[in-house]
Amino acid sequence: MRPLELHPNRLLPAGEEQRRVARQLFEAVEPLPLVSPHGHLDANLFLHNEPFADPAELLVTSDHYVVRLLHAQGVPLEALGIGRKEGTSQAVGGRQVWGNLCEHWGALASTPSRLWLEHELHELFGLREMPSPGNADATYEAACDRLATEELLPRSLYQRFGLEVLTTTDSPLCELRVHQELASDQTWRGRILPTYRPDELVDPSHPGFSASLARLAELTGIETDGYDGYLEALRSRREAFARAGATATDHGVPVTGTERLDPAELAGLFRRLSHGGGSSAEVEAFRGHMLDEMARMACDDGLVMQLHVGVVRDYVADTAATYGPDIGQDFPTRTDYIRTLRPLLSRYGDHPGFRLVLYTVDETTFAREIGPLVSYFPALFAGAPWWFLDAPDSMARAFSALGETAGLAKLAGFVDDTRSLCGIGARHDLARRVLCGYLSRLVCEHRLGIDEATEQATAFAYHRPKALFKV
Amino acid sequence: MRPLELHPNRLLPAGEEQRRVARQLFEAVEPLPLVSPHGHLDANLFLHNEPFADPAELLVTSDHYVVRLLHAQGVPLEALGIGRKEGTSQAVGGRQVWGNLCEHWGALASTPSRLWLEHELHELFGLREMPSPGNADATYEAACDRLATEELLPRSLYQRFGLEVLTTTDSPLCELRVHQELASDQTWRGRILPTYRPDELVDPSHPGFSASLARLAELTGIETDGYDGYLEALRSRREAFARAGATATDHGVPVTGTERLDPAELAGLFRRLSHGGGSSAEVEAFRGHMLDEMARMACDDGLVMQLHVGVVRDYVADTAATYGPDIGQDFPTRTDYIRTLRPLLSRYGDHPGFRLVLYTVDETTFAREIGPLVSYFPALFAGAPWWFLDAPDSMARAFSALGETAGLAKLAGFVDDTRSLCGIGARHDLARRVLCGYLSRLVCEHRLGIDEATEQATAFAYHRPKALFKV
Amino acid sequence: MRPLELHPNRLLPAGEEQRRVARQLFEAVEPLPLVSPHGHLDANLFLHNEPFADPAELLVTSDHYVVRLLHAQGVPLEALGIGRKEGTSQAVGGRQVWGNLCEHWGALASTPSRLWLEHELHELFGLREMPSPGNADATYEAACDRLATEELLPRSLYQRFGLEVLTTTDSPLCELRVHQELASDQTWRGRILPTYRPDELVDPSHPGFSASLARLAELTGIETDGYDGYLEALRSRREAFARAGATATDHGVPVTGTERLDPAELAGLFRRLSHGGGSSAEVEAFRGHMLDEMARMACDDGLVMQLHVGVVRDYVADTAATYGPDIGQDFPTRTDYIRTLRPLLSRYGDHPGFRLVLYTVDETTFAREIGPLVSYFPALFAGAPWWFLDAPDSMARAFSALGETAGLAKLAGFVDDTRSLCGIGARHDLARRVLCGYLSRLVCEHRLGIDEATEQATAFAYHRPKALFKV
Repeated sequence: MRPLELHPNRLLPAGEEQRRVARQLFEAVEPLPLVSPHGHLDANLFLHNEPFADPAELLVTSDHYVVRLLHAQGVPLEALGIGRKEGTSQAVGGRQVWGNLCEHWGALASTPSRLWLEHELHELFGLREMPSPGNADATYEAACDRLATEELLPRSLYQRFGLEVLTTTDSPLCELRVHQELASDQTWRGRILPTYRPDELVDPSHPGFSASLARLAELTGIETDGYDGYLEALRSRREAFARAGATATDHGVPVTGTERLDPAELAGLFRRLSHGGGSSAEVEAFRGHMLDEMARMACDDGLVMQLHVGVVRDYVADTAATYGPDIGQDFPTRTDYIRTLRPLLSRYGDHPGFRLVLYTVDETTFAREIGPLVSYFPALFAGAPWWFLDAPDSMARAFSALGETAGLAKLAGFVDDTRSLCGIGARHDLARRVLCGYLSRLVCEHRLGIDEATEQATAFAYHRPKALFKV
Repeated sequence: MRPLELHPNRLLPAGEEQRRVARQLFEAVEPLPLVSPHGHLDANLFLHNEPFADPAELLVTSDHYVVRLLHAQGVPLEALGIGRKEGTSQAVGGRQVWGNLCEHWGALASTPSRLWLEHELHELFGLREMPSPGNADATYEAACDRLATEELLPRSLYQRFGLEVLTTTDSPLCELRVHQELASDQTWRGRILPTYRPDELVDPSHPGFSASLARLAELTGIETDGYDGYLEALRSRREAFARAGATATDHGVPVTGTERLDPAELAGLFRRLSHGGGSSAEVEAFRGHMLDEMARMACDDGLVMQLHVGVVRDYVADTAATYGPDIGQDFPTRTDYIRTLRPLLSRYGDHPGFRLVLYTVDETTFAREIGPLVSYFPALFAGAPWWFLDAPDSMARAFSALGETAGLAKLAGFVDDTRSLCGIGARHDLARRVLCGYLSRLVCEHRLGIDEATEQATAFAYHRPKALFKV
Repeated sequence: MRPLELHPNRLLPAGEEQRRVARQLFEAVEPLPLVSPHGHLDANLFLHNEPFADPAELLVTSDHYVVRLLHAQGVPLEALGIGRKEGTSQAVGGRQVWGNLCEHWGALASTPSRLWLEHELHELFGLREMPSPGNADATYEAACDRLATEELLPRSLYQRFGLEVLTTTDSPLCELRVHQELASDQTWRGRILPTYRPDELVDPSHPGFSASLARLAELTGIETDGYDGYLEALRSRREAFARAGATATDHGVPVTGTERLDPAELAGLFRRLSHGGGSSAEVEAFRGHMLDEMARMACDDGLVMQLHVGVVRDYVADTAATYGPDIGQDFPTRTDYIRTLRPLLSRYGDHPGFRLVLYTVDETTFAREIGPLVSYFPALFAGAPWWFLDAPDSMARAFSALGETAGLAKLAGFVDDTRSLCGIGARHDLARRVLCGYLSRLVCEHRLGIDEATEQATAFAYHRPKALFKV
């Protein structure tokens, strides 16, 4: 049996002097509230505030980071609780999924998922032993018991983490009733805000594009069979989101350019695309054009635009068809931000009302592209290292690259981007520690005074994302 | 005169605490036997077990890493012992080559070749002075004397390094007689296993492709003028290799895709290609298709597939024509692993009988492509940093990138990939030290306990490659 | 008020042992004279030796690194002193520009510009307080006063920095009168040498290409309406530059290949291009061809060739049209050095008279491309990390990547590449400290002895660039 401990200096650098400075910085940052302006939780969690059903479902099955790592050890998807869409086989139950986690616990070593899980198991579930085959049943049962307590109800977790605001990611077709109910709930003071993510409505290659357009028309009462109405309907939903508290949009479509299309051709092209026509080049061009439209609207309505690109999803088509999306088989691809964004930044990069946050899963772009771009355009900010890069060394490399090319002031601040409520505390804790480690090096190398380092730390961890995302 | 010393803490991190932990880890790893499941030595060395002729030939001329670095200082290839294929000029003798090494010893500073050479000169050749122009003759003669001793015979070196198994790389056209004789040699207990490397038989752009096909037919007794016979003959050689102890194949052809070709067109295409026809696009497509076939066979026969891609060889055509291959003028090129491997991984990435080890000379792919891919597909493993990246800082960066995206458990373990018998001990020593340095950081940052770090260290250095490569 | 101090150990690594070694190395390097074989100052500065007019113009407006970072904070270009080319608006005066610097001083934290400015303000301007909104007027006035003193005259700065030689960058159309007057000036012993930069004469897409050709003919007395005369005229200007002391050329055109064009077609192509004709593919091919011609001439006349590629300039066309070039809106793009340079290196890479220094703003090419290439070709050297990469951590990464793949001996040495006379001392100081930090790690990890590390440090900082650039 191995003890499960959270060392107070975990993730701070080795070396007496640097660790001391890092600790000092961390002490300034640790007590700050959390802002979570980008995430993927379901608002219903907070509305219903019911206990989570099963710890394995919560910590394994629904977390595609963990699913991916365990599947890589040869564990079948079913044995991780992932059911087939057409159920000819049965996914296994929580106890067995938990057993698989315990069995392969060692294989998670050196990954951030392991560090997050340790944090959650220790702090939320009260475990004091590392999971292992020998304690699988005992830890599963202990975790189940804890899940049933009030302490682990969604609203309790929100409070425990010191969250000030938490945003969800929502289709423009979402009516936002849950968000509205939460806003008017007098029994609770948490803030759960929606984020406008229009991918299915601006990417004609999205399955169900035509149906989504029809639903958009229905929802807004605006005809979407012409390009102008379509734009108007999209804008109308942005307004509805803003009224419901949204301050940002998010965009994850594949993008290779951001040229505006010829107005003379747009109407015809849109009509073809909305009926499932159009070449793949036209689909691509339209997607790029729509990013421009979204940026243009953002200049007007002030919603902060977020761009998440460079991921190929559902890599093995058969597996996606059988098991659905978000099961770990999404991978980075290359994006040339300099070339891709040139038209869009030429139009809006200096616009005082525009804010664009760029995320990447290709860390080579931090020093070569994103850092230089955000170091010139006032509208542009570098998003936190994301997904595969949301990890201690990756983050430290990103701080180093962006800090030198752009200055830390052009980093948008940490976002947890999570589907895991339990993980929010762990993710912010890790990021804050790594940040303080990076800054402690600058201090010890006499590149930055401790006062300014403290300001940079608290700005990145709290003040800047709060201001930038207007939450 | 500068002393040549091997500090016991060489390559371990500075900083008292981290060095102490690294030392502790290294002490667990150092005594483990070596497994060398990927290399380029000639099996005859061990069959005949004769003394090496000349230290300069051994340490300089036959090591293209060293040739490259000395040539970059302006030393002509002839002066490094590289003869012209059509001998109008004469390569110089060992004493002069050694003199050139001594002359430019300082130019090797900061390269891994320098560290390996220091290790070999100190441990095998008993030198206690750094080579320099002033001691060129004396060190050359001392080295010659040592080479003549029994201690430096190939079998003695095998034993001295603690090798448990060592593999060669062989054409399917190789009859493996040497391997068979070694296997039945009662006077020696070393294991020298072949590896199946079919590049010349699956890449129609290879010079002598047609002749190789004819030789394949002759060797197997299977007609290779049709596609089916060709496949059958390749499979038959895989079986012969497996019977001779092979557990792996290696593939180094240029590859831009792995789509299977239309069965209806394959027969005709193969016939054209085997007669020197076919467009360059067809050659490329065929190479990709044949990777698929090799993977398919690997699922059946269990040979571990290794993919070494992303190198442009014989960069200056004239120089290659004059001096031949492997003289240091090979360079990395870019490979998009995500896109290239999608068809192949979609077919076999989940196959329980399949194992694919990916090597790269483009370190940007560790975090962006290889780490994410191996973190999902059970069949896939990340190969050790290779060639230009087989160096302390490069290795540490690879551990960092792969450790976070995939977990160390998805690293295939160290392979020395060497053409230099003398260097095997030095290369494993260096890699093990760097590994322990990386892990000591995780321990000192409280990201991993010392027990688990020790397990990870011994797994990477010994247990995992032994199990993964089935040696 | 925050004190402005230059710590004696600034930029040296944390950790007692490593810092001590770094300090020891730095003490060997610090007193060495500066050589500055690549820069962008105006030779007139030294001829007239007049006081600089305004500290804000000097340290902000004329430094596009600083302009970029302040513009990224939302400061309009006019408010940084950048005037419109067609002056409908007025750029603000020095005091206001300085005020903007003070206002956003914190936003420069973690950038090298901040470190350089701190150095200059402390050492040259005698400030002992960090700029801030509260001291903007006082510090501006203090700086103005200092600028008027003899100590800050251009020739005094040259002397103060310990410069041995400083080169400018000049069009072949420059008559070099200023350089000649300086050379024959008996009152001063500084060396200001020109560098031949023919971009406007070898890139047909350059605005005014035809006019430049006409001017070239006029200057040389050689007809440039045919290809042979054009080449001859270019060669003649190289000779004139060499007579004026030039030892190098510099090339910054976009380049995607270096194939020589068919001689039979060159005459006709050149004629078309010189009259503004030719497709963009032809323009591109011609630029590549002209790099070959420049390399060929370099083999003859011994001018060191420098290649600066991979930058897209004047990103927002409207902004460039309004405010001109060099205002911070230039960004890295990707260059494939392996493929692009293959023809050129195949021809000249082994030529004993040829030297080519490669610069990049894409750090991924250090380990993948530039390091491997310079580790084979005797003619080739890796240029210092440049522009966005001229920063502490970026430099350390470059040393690490190039040191392992090529050996430090293949680094051309530091060049400041600056437009800012005041910054030269600061830039060399920073680079030397980072170099010593890197080397101290090798020493403390027992990868290099302190003697050799000292040799490597002094070579990189002084001896190698002096020898390599023949200054």
